[in-house]
Amino acid sequence: MTALEGRALAAGIREAAAEEAASLVPVLAAVVATEDPATAWYAGALTKAAGATGIELRESRLDPSDASGVIERLESLSADPEVDGIICLTPLPEGLSLAEAGELIAPGKDVDGASPVSLGRLVAGLPAFAPATAQAVIELLRQSGTQLEGANAVIVGRSIVVGKPLALLLLDENATVTVAHTRTRDLEETTRRADVLVAAAGRARLIGAEHVRPGAVVIDVGTNEEPDGSMVGDVDTAAVEPFAIVTPVPGGVGPVTTAVLMRNVVTAAKRR
Amino acid sequence: MTALEGRALAAGIREAAAEEAASLVPVLAAVVATEDPATAWYAGALTKAAGATGIELRESRLDPSDASGVIERLESLSADPEVDGIICLTPLPEGLSLAEAGELIAPGKDVDGASPVSLGRLVAGLPAFAPATAQAVIELLRQSGTQLEGANAVIVGRSIVVGKPLALLLLDENATVTVAHTRTRDLEETTRRADVLVAAAGRARLIGAEHVRPGAVVIDVGTNEEPDGSMVGDVDTAAVEPFAIVTPVPGGVGPVTTAVLMRNVVTAAKRR
Repeated sequence: MTALEGRALAAGIREAAAEEAASLVPVLAAVVATEDPATAWYAGALTKAAGATGIELRESRLDPSDASGVIERLESLSADPEVDGIICLTPLPEGLSLAEAGELIAPGKDVDGASPVSLGRLVAGLPAFAPATAQAVIELLRQSGTQLEGANAVIVGRSIVVGKPLALLLLDENATVTVAHTRTRDLEETTRRADVLVAAAGRARLIGAEHVRPGAVVIDVGTNEEPDGSMVGDVDTAAVEPFAIVTPVPGGVGPVTTAVLMRNVVTAAKRR
Repeated sequence: MTALEGRALAAGIREAAAEEAASLVPVLAAVVATEDPATAWYAGALTKAAGATGIELRESRLDPSDASGVIERLESLSADPEVDGIICLTPLPEGLSLAEAGELIAPGKDVDGASPVSLGRLVAGLPAFAPATAQAVIELLRQSGTQLEGANAVIVGRSIVVGKPLALLLLDENATVTVAHTRTRDLEETTRRADVLVAAAGRARLIGAEHVRPGAVVIDVGTNEEPDGSMVGDVDTAAVEPFAIVTPVPGGVGPVTTAVLMRNVVTAAKRR
């Protein structure tokens, strides 16, 4: 069936954000305390997207072995009136979890929904930024024209950045939501019930043809690096694409995530 | 099959809490701004449980039409060093949601997990008090000896106080978790897959024999008042009990919830 492309959707989100950004010149601070090449690649994508949106990106490159350096920087950025949004890239220095780092980000600047306060407001149905990846999945589902109300949505993966917040967002869309994971007894049986299947387990090609109901919409959140350096998702796209709608990796969730993040920065700047 | 009684479990939890409370004399503040008879009944149950546990209960009876009175009281109780725990009973005055009230409760005193901060810490896997009802369901499941790891758990209802936080707690127990609700397309098919079924929809006898797989463990969170004044759950117990394990209403989740709340107050007092 057709692929569900993210690039055009991302461009549309970015263009709308850029129009609003023009008069604001929003500032996004990115904290990077790792030499990880995948993170460096993502930071590059953020720089490009920020440039295209008219957002000033201020990157803090910090010592990957110094947790206290990250803590201090997040605190000072949270207090800095010039900064509209803060994103903290992973992996983080040892001894500092993403949840702990998220707690240091002022909720109003938490454009990637990393703070427990943002997550809690999401649970409680109060306004908050959701993690951009989870938001991007909803955007792609909307673009696909999928009826979410009453749909069986199955998420594979229960992380703080995707699985759990996405479950809340899909409940808000009136889907019946199942969260499966490594301990799920019969993954195949569980995922085959899905009208909407979100693969966010972080395991290359975990989802094969036997996991997918014909006609399902499959959103692939995975970004797994192959031994040859290429990037593959959690879905065996070649096997699934003949009978389901699948987002490509790369070019699916990734660009939409970055665009949503930019939109969130503009939203934060408007509240200055 | 057998009923899964809550009273003995509740007594055990309360006794363990009472032992620890003896040297602390913890203080629980309850804010009541309603004339609702069900709430009055619950406040009475709290008073009794607090007395049995050695906790001092301070009840604030406020004007049901005055939201600002509730706001002010929650703020002053949050700041009061004598108060260990705060619970805000519903219904609340018009114009004040439970989530908004929860935001005013200091997270360390939020013994019923009403604050978005507590809910968010739950999502993020950080220590926090979960809503007592959701915790009570986990306690009853543990008592039943049900293997939760890999089990298919289905929750009917997506409220902030039960459905959503319970989904998070059951994920922590490694269950595969589905949240169903009023918009679920085929409730019967969805609930029949459950090894563990939690009815928290607030609709009398919503769950009948046709909704339950033989041998399932069914936790009935509902407390619905019948025209004759009696209280019934969300489960048609007479129909389901012949082939499943069901918690009674009353005498199931209710007393365990109250006991868990007392335990949380003692935990909060120990951190003074």
